[in-house]
Amino acid sequence: MGCIVMLMRKHRGLFLKQPRLLVLEEVPTPTPTREAVLIKVLSAGICHSDIHRWKGEMPCPEGFEAGAGTHEVVGKVEERGEMVPEYIKEGQKVLVYFLRNYREEDKYTRRGLAHHAKTPIFIGGMQEYVLVPTYHCLISIENLRDIHAAPPLACAALTSYGAVKKLKSYVEPDDYVAIIGLGGLGSYAVQWLRILFPYVNLIGIDVKDEALNFAAKFAKIDVLINAAKEDPAKIINEVTRNDGVKAFIDFVGSTGTINTYIKMLSHLGIYVVVGTMGKEVILPVLHTLIAKEFCLQGSFMGSIQDQYEIVEFARRGLLNYSDVVTRRLKFDPVEVNRAYQDLDEGRVLGRQVVIFE
Amino acid sequence: MGCIVMLMRKHRGLFLKQPRLLVLEEVPTPTPTREAVLIKVLSAGICHSDIHRWKGEMPCPEGFEAGAGTHEVVGKVEERGEMVPEYIKEGQKVLVYFLRNYREEDKYTRRGLAHHAKTPIFIGGMQEYVLVPTYHCLISIENLRDIHAAPPLACAALTSYGAVKKLKSYVEPDDYVAIIGLGGLGSYAVQWLRILFPYVNLIGIDVKDEALNFAAKFAKIDVLINAAKEDPAKIINEVTRNDGVKAFIDFVGSTGTINTYIKMLSHLGIYVVVGTMGKEVILPVLHTLIAKEFCLQGSFMGSIQDQYEIVEFARRGLLNYSDVVTRRLKFDPVEVNRAYQDLDEGRVLGRQVVIFE
Amino acid sequence: MGCIVMLMRKHRGLFLKQPRLLVLEEVPTPTPTREAVLIKVLSAGICHSDIHRWKGEMPCPEGFEAGAGTHEVVGKVEERGEMVPEYIKEGQKVLVYFLRNYREEDKYTRRGLAHHAKTPIFIGGMQEYVLVPTYHCLISIENLRDIHAAPPLACAALTSYGAVKKLKSYVEPDDYVAIIGLGGLGSYAVQWLRILFPYVNLIGIDVKDEALNFAAKFAKIDVLINAAKEDPAKIINEVTRNDGVKAFIDFVGSTGTINTYIKMLSHLGIYVVVGTMGKEVILPVLHTLIAKEFCLQGSFMGSIQDQYEIVEFARRGLLNYSDVVTRRLKFDPVEVNRAYQDLDEGRVLGRQVVIFE
Amino acid sequence: MGCIVMLMRKHRGLFLKQPRLLVLEEVPTPTPTREAVLIKVLSAGICHSDIHRWKGEMPCPEGFEAGAGTHEVVGKVEERGEMVPEYIKEGQKVLVYFLRNYREEDKYTRRGLAHHAKTPIFIGGMQEYVLVPTYHCLISIENLRDIHAAPPLACAALTSYGAVKKLKSYVEPDDYVAIIGLGGLGSYAVQWLRILFPYVNLIGIDVKDEALNFAAKFAKIDVLINAAKEDPAKIINEVTRNDGVKAFIDFVGSTGTINTYIKMLSHLGIYVVVGTMGKEVILPVLHTLIAKEFCLQGSFMGSIQDQYEIVEFARRGLLNYSDVVTRRLKFDPVEVNRAYQDLDEGRVLGRQVVIFE
Repeated sequence: MGCIVMLMRKHRGLFLKQPRLLVLEEVPTPTPTREAVLIKVLSAGICHSDIHRWKGEMPCPEGFEAGAGTHEVVGKVEERGEMVPEYIKEGQKVLVYFLRNYREEDKYTRRGLAHHAKTPIFIGGMQEYVLVPTYHCLISIENLRDIHAAPPLACAALTSYGAVKKLKSYVEPDDYVAIIGLGGLGSYAVQWLRILFPYVNLIGIDVKDEALNFAAKFAKIDVLINAAKEDPAKIINEVTRNDGVKAFIDFVGSTGTINTYIKMLSHLGIYVVVGTMGKEVILPVLHTLIAKEFCLQGSFMGSIQDQYEIVEFARRGLLNYSDVVTRRLKFDPVEVNRAYQDLDEGRVLGRQVVIFE
Repeated sequence: MGCIVMLMRKHRGLFLKQPRLLVLEEVPTPTPTREAVLIKVLSAGICHSDIHRWKGEMPCPEGFEAGAGTHEVVGKVEERGEMVPEYIKEGQKVLVYFLRNYREEDKYTRRGLAHHAKTPIFIGGMQEYVLVPTYHCLISIENLRDIHAAPPLACAALTSYGAVKKLKSYVEPDDYVAIIGLGGLGSYAVQWLRILFPYVNLIGIDVKDEALNFAAKFAKIDVLINAAKEDPAKIINEVTRNDGVKAFIDFVGSTGTINTYIKMLSHLGIYVVVGTMGKEVILPVLHTLIAKEFCLQGSFMGSIQDQYEIVEFARRGLLNYSDVVTRRLKFDPVEVNRAYQDLDEGRVLGRQVVIFE
Repeated sequence: MGCIVMLMRKHRGLFLKQPRLLVLEEVPTPTPTREAVLIKVLSAGICHSDIHRWKGEMPCPEGFEAGAGTHEVVGKVEERGEMVPEYIKEGQKVLVYFLRNYREEDKYTRRGLAHHAKTPIFIGGMQEYVLVPTYHCLISIENLRDIHAAPPLACAALTSYGAVKKLKSYVEPDDYVAIIGLGGLGSYAVQWLRILFPYVNLIGIDVKDEALNFAAKFAKIDVLINAAKEDPAKIINEVTRNDGVKAFIDFVGSTGTINTYIKMLSHLGIYVVVGTMGKEVILPVLHTLIAKEFCLQGSFMGSIQDQYEIVEFARRGLLNYSDVVTRRLKFDPVEVNRAYQDLDEGRVLGRQVVIFE
Repeated sequence: MGCIVMLMRKHRGLFLKQPRLLVLEEVPTPTPTREAVLIKVLSAGICHSDIHRWKGEMPCPEGFEAGAGTHEVVGKVEERGEMVPEYIKEGQKVLVYFLRNYREEDKYTRRGLAHHAKTPIFIGGMQEYVLVPTYHCLISIENLRDIHAAPPLACAALTSYGAVKKLKSYVEPDDYVAIIGLGGLGSYAVQWLRILFPYVNLIGIDVKDEALNFAAKFAKIDVLINAAKEDPAKIINEVTRNDGVKAFIDFVGSTGTINTYIKMLSHLGIYVVVGTMGKEVILPVLHTLIAKEFCLQGSFMGSIQDQYEIVEFARRGLLNYSDVVTRRLKFDPVEVNRAYQDLDEGRVLGRQVVIFE
């Protein structure tokens, strides 16, 4: 029985910088042994990092030179290795948390922080069947209403959740928190803010009105700033009465955003960087960093426990994940190619998913 | 009855950049009213920030244009305002915590973080009597053995303690922690590390052998690195088996130290900046900041509660504060002038205090 | 100018156990000096502890032998002592946080925990004017919509907030939290749970249907249990699938409630006792306490910072405090007497306030 | 090749309450498959819980009806299942953390708290070879000096470490901490206190002078109280100047100890119960529990991460584990029988280990 896979082929010929060609191919369906589980993919999400691989700017993980990416996968259990416990059942619907390496352990994995382990697992999902190396990576999503919209929970929602949780020991009632960049991650982030810290004042910042309006559908945002039209410093000074913002979450992460906004932090504040558009950061604020005792904090994905919590928020109706998915595509090279182009050229609000079944 | 004050006079004449002239002058001794307390100074410490005022690089706080600085003061209670409670007794020996403003309050003062309040109090101690505006600034040091060596507890020890405490939610047994700059603050810091986190591996970094040897007298330092002679990256990679350092405390804070050492952080690490020698920081590590989820944290002084804890550590014999004071001077302009010069030109290990009585 | 005070007079004659007589009397209006502020009372709340004084079961605080109680007070600034800072203005509307002693300090006050200090301040508000000993006790409520309903923020809302905050390091998404006793405090508590931990499953327990229905108006309660009609153990085992409840908050605190519900705690859970109806507790669960590593935690009021946060939640519309106040009385001995009786005999849902102006 | 096992046989005949008979028997040595590892035992510790099984008061875990107990095991790797990673080498010396179940997972295991999972693993070590079901339970102890004294690190040291860590968010410099019961666990506990909170005042309480003297060899104990000869309340009130003790750790856990000492807690304190001698606890202090906001906390063992940290403290020379082991026995039924008797009858200070090789 075959498994249809969507591959990324390098173009031969003159145009080296052209994005790769997407094609379908049939390969043998793998058989799970030991702890492994074979998943029949139901839907898969498209992430910015897929664009980098598609454009040839980033190497594909080993074994995926030709794979069409996507690490956001939901599916149902097709076949189980002989060591998989009984509570993982055939037909069960699951989300794949792809960062868990259960083989080797170190101080990170022991604390449930496998996403900091040396050898993370990588799973690509643009194919009919995915072999997940251990059942420890699977989270049941049986009671989710809109399973097709669930894949971004595994990366976009997780990354934004990991960033927002970093504010836990910083924000207090009536503090101001600002989100920079209101795309897919930002739309989850404003919701996480309202779930975890409903008592803060929320500022949303973007350079497009559509993005500001899109994010505003998901949570009450107290102040919306279009940084292309308005002066953020002036507005922020005004609304915070010169106290500054207690926490920024920066999904852009360019030299420009960091240098602009870090100056608007209040005492004992935190600036969380998630986006990686910048190559280097010039902090003109060393004296301020010290006098105000603030911190610049990096954020990367989240733990398996975070992933369970996210699924739980979605199940309880606290997280609107359905409407973040603004396009549902077929498992078809032409559609996926257009989706990659649109994402690359900034024409996508929210997230796109490929529906297999 | 008069009070002798040591003043900083601007030189008249040609040489504008010359350090100020130190002179003694008699002024009326102030009388404390309400919450205020008059302190007879017993000894006062010399801090790097005094040098900036002496060299005219930094303005003196209001009312102290002519004052000879020092905010590290111990003394005994000479006279009490009428609202001062009975537990503050005449003759009682006290340390002055100078950052406490009890008049106006905000979210910082309410949480005991008056050092982040908008209008800190400044108290200069190079004078026979100091008027402390509120008894809330006084901490009893009755049971300290070496009261003359106590003034740096109010700034050098406090600043290093505040920095080391920031590691609390970061360091675990067997982690590596590195202190950059082993002068007066560094000599306290290695002790705080051993008191608060005795289970970490400690790395000491300086560019002078004397400083390395001086700090090593105060605590067991596992690895000493003279960065002027050795390659810190090579040594750190070796001893940490490429895992990196979990926490740096940087008492230099130059562009050079930050850019060099921040690359050696491990996952989930923290880089605390205390020194302010750098004007701006170029972080060439945005991608690493995110993937490793580390943070760059500023640190400034400490709270009144920190100050009490420090006095308590000293009283219980857990902190060696006596030997950090390497020079005890007379309250004499010539001696103080030489002390300023030596400190400015890097000839002082540890701290210097002026003994009044 | 006189100040009308409502006093509690002991009955002379035969019936010793009769509640005290409430009468009005005119006394000289005090003049504030130094840090003190004279407040013209706008409204004052009635608390269970007032009943104890009214019935002669509890001594009145010094100076209030005859006072008619109430420590829940809002008013406006009538006159200021000469040391009161300018930001406290005449006419300003304020809530009185009555637990703050600014004179003596200890390790509790330094950390902002004055409610654990040895000599708390007590302020009674059943009178036209109240002399507040220091402006540090005043919190501006200028922007509150329903100032007459605000007094219980100073005790009922604070006590329940202090209890709910104790769950912070315990509860995780999808955990079960149960509130025992859904009167005035319980009606705030269900709201605090939804504000601070919107992601938990909430169980409400009482012995009256009216109380269950009343509390359900303030927050979504997932499971309502009338413990007089249903078996709580059976329901809780069912809904938690035998995992147990992660956190109980017990506003009754009788031997019965504690012994019944503590057995239903899950591993690593917390049982917070607020009510003091029980005299002693028999824990038949020592082995379970250890194997499950749970804790039994007392809770008492809250800090000045908590009080600010509560006012802020109310101001932002996150807390419904208006509807918790179910009766608004006149400053009249007959009305107050009836209010005390009704509260004593269990006929009051929510809280009662006396309106002065 | 055979494996010699020491079994507990029930006596046949008249005396039912007699402790079981210890005998040696040869059984086939098991072969490890998959994740399992066969360990050749080097030494094994004797714990109080073994006494309960020996006296027939407690059932043996399944498959160990006849086993002679001990869950404190160190050994060397004899044979590896085919899925065991390369970093577990043949001949490697390891400690067995016996509480880790890697097969099924729940919210506890995901957070690294497998000791709260529903189906813990139980491993008995009074036999030449032990089959450890997964390599995840093994911790390398290659660099420990005294491997024969290491077994109690797996239970006695872990249990006391877990208890002491619970003080983390409670104790501050100059607080008083008291340990009740200075046997084996107490001797580790005083060391953990000195390692984790060197800045507190330490009180040791026991009813035997030998135990007080024994514990005093391991750490500086500021106040020693023989509760059989002296009045603990009087001494504690005196030394704490009526402030009380911030934290108790009770290794006895009788109704008597809890009821006596819980009254001596200070505000915001914690009473950790580890011992299980009491069946029920009568808390006569409900009002105090609330007014002082203290807590009664159970404590049970520790996590795999705790176990790593303990081995690390031992390796770095911070923990004296050698001298806690006061008797080293042969793997011989007569010696083990006498060791059980002596422990049962209170004649053992510290811990006893059986040396196999």
